[in-house]
Amino acid sequence: MDVNQVSKIALSKHKQWKGKLDVQLKEPITNRKELSIAYTPGVAAPCMEIAKDEQNAYEYTGKGNTVAVITDGSAVLGLGDIGPQAAMPVMEGKCALFKQFANIDAVPICIDSKDTKEIVNIVTAISKSFGGINLEDISAPRCFEIEKLLSESCDIPVFHDDQHGTAIVTCAALINAKKVLGKKECKIVISGAGSAGIAIARLIIHMKLGNVIICDKFGIIYRGCESNNNAQEEIAQITNQDDIRGSLADALVGADVLIGVSRGGIVSKDMIRSMADDPIVFVMSNPEPEIMPDLAKEAGAAIVGTGRSDFPNQINNVMAFPGIFRGLLDHRVKQVTLDMKMASAIALSEVIENPDRDHILPDPFDRNVVPAIAEAIGKVKNL
Amino acid sequence: MDVNQVSKIALSKHKQWKGKLDVQLKEPITNRKELSIAYTPGVAAPCMEIAKDEQNAYEYTGKGNTVAVITDGSAVLGLGDIGPQAAMPVMEGKCALFKQFANIDAVPICIDSKDTKEIVNIVTAISKSFGGINLEDISAPRCFEIEKLLSESCDIPVFHDDQHGTAIVTCAALINAKKVLGKKECKIVISGAGSAGIAIARLIIHMKLGNVIICDKFGIIYRGCESNNNAQEEIAQITNQDDIRGSLADALVGADVLIGVSRGGIVSKDMIRSMADDPIVFVMSNPEPEIMPDLAKEAGAAIVGTGRSDFPNQINNVMAFPGIFRGLLDHRVKQVTLDMKMASAIALSEVIENPDRDHILPDPFDRNVVPAIAEAIGKVKNL
Repeated sequence: MDVNQVSKIALSKHKQWKGKLDVQLKEPITNRKELSIAYTPGVAAPCMEIAKDEQNAYEYTGKGNTVAVITDGSAVLGLGDIGPQAAMPVMEGKCALFKQFANIDAVPICIDSKDTKEIVNIVTAISKSFGGINLEDISAPRCFEIEKLLSESCDIPVFHDDQHGTAIVTCAALINAKKVLGKKECKIVISGAGSAGIAIARLIIHMKLGNVIICDKFGIIYRGCESNNNAQEEIAQITNQDDIRGSLADALVGADVLIGVSRGGIVSKDMIRSMADDPIVFVMSNPEPEIMPDLAKEAGAAIVGTGRSDFPNQINNVMAFPGIFRGLLDHRVKQVTLDMKMASAIALSEVIENPDRDHILPDPFDRNVVPAIAEAIGKVKNL
Repeated sequence: MDVNQVSKIALSKHKQWKGKLDVQLKEPITNRKELSIAYTPGVAAPCMEIAKDEQNAYEYTGKGNTVAVITDGSAVLGLGDIGPQAAMPVMEGKCALFKQFANIDAVPICIDSKDTKEIVNIVTAISKSFGGINLEDISAPRCFEIEKLLSESCDIPVFHDDQHGTAIVTCAALINAKKVLGKKECKIVISGAGSAGIAIARLIIHMKLGNVIICDKFGIIYRGCESNNNAQEEIAQITNQDDIRGSLADALVGADVLIGVSRGGIVSKDMIRSMADDPIVFVMSNPEPEIMPDLAKEAGAAIVGTGRSDFPNQINNVMAFPGIFRGLLDHRVKQVTLDMKMASAIALSEVIENPDRDHILPDPFDRNVVPAIAEAIGKVKNL
């Protein structure tokens, strides 16, 4: 199906559904006795247990299996700042995926504010209703500070999927691509210095998968560059170790890996040709990749991955966040660490036993993915 | 079952359930094609429709059938200020009732703040995710201002059930009790000047069901009384027309109706004896009524109602809020008016065709209740 066809079906399906989610009772309330147990006066008993010790909320309520999917609608898919109301279908979709893949009850919350401090206050204030917070489609660089502040103010785990979900799946793909090609030392160029690009850079460096140069629309990011925002200046401290300057094309000369999380069509065949032998090319811009896979292959790319389901090697967040949150909830993790993200990437890469050039990641519907990642998170927590 | 037995079962059931609610998908996502329709890239199409016109959220998302059940945990059942975390079992129970009785998808949100302005900002900011707001168990007098401010700041209906749900069911009961006893002019005494007492007084006066005197723990409320908070001073303007002073006992002399929403055991048989002939006695304090029904009957009460399910004439909010919100959502009401509350009370009173002294209200599980109220709200909206 082409995108127009998918859009048409999606529109008619969404109109039919009027919401992809349904709240159900675990046990029906059909008579006075059942009412007195699920509601007054019986419900006072679990309330009092939680009043004694808030941790009892994990025993007597849905907190331990409930995640809030929260956005301000400022960076929705490739659509940009369409606002909190228009972001709802995506958030409902994300919640549906939480249920489908990890049996997690997720609730979409769209916040009508763009102010970092206000968003942090709002999410903190409602966080007791949930066991975890999944931030979604919040624009950079605000997303970095919002996540950082929330991680400090909430006693439940906070995870910005556009950053870390993307980083985990990309690193899993990179591990297997390197293995398939027998690559050791890697020069890695990331195109795009927004939420995904910066998180990918950070995880690659933490995992020692290679040296990183990161580029934005102004070119290679370096320490002290005037156009850097805070997050970019921070990442400049640990990337571009030779402090070089120039364009994305300059950065790519001799590089082993290109990771694109930027804009469709900005990479040429010549740029791919300038890379090292057998380069790894992950071009994840959606719906149009930085370079189309067939062109990248013609120019010598050994392994190509995209964000799309109609090419091999789809690098898709849906392989990460359900297992991550399953692990965070099952093991009552309070803070998501870089080591947990690393362990998740390794676990995901190991789900596929014999990766090849067209299969560096498992199928998103592979039932082994979620338990593997969840278990990996538990192991790190219990180290 | 006595309360201890109910508590024991409720505790074990809550532990088994770990949350009374379950999020389900309306349609499963089991392959790449379904994924591309419910999520990217297909989901962009409904997003764009809503970006064009926010009202389209009612067509393409669950907004139009979703209610947030919101509390700050400051006045939970008879338990008082147990906080937002301990309030969760009640909010989940309320959400379960929304589903069971009116097929509404409700989401419990517990807010960790007691500041009126902050609560209003938080609820306003997340309100786009929902089609209606049910405020629950927020202490008086803050609940009045919070509801008023939210009604101004949100473009979806806001309804504080402890006020208006109680008022609607009480007025329905009063209509039928008066009918059964053939009472016309009524002197009505309300014991309790919190959220329920004040809302009941306001609706009784709007419906011209009688003259009202309202008492709090300091006695009869009158204009300019030093202990009045803002809400009490406001209600003093339209109650106690003869501007009398004194205790609850003084107020009850010659009264036709007592409505208790205060504290257990504070009304004596002598106080009932001092009332007019064939008095109506609604003693709704929970779990212990202001006077036990058998004592009230011995002292001459013609009709007794309580909040409890183990006596006749249970005056229970569950008869109101599901139908109210079904009506608000179905008719896309933006503001809940006193006329809608009046129409709801009348509709509820009319569900029971032949009321008698022990049957002034329908059974809470009567399937005619929700559609009758929902329809009544629609009629008022379309006047």
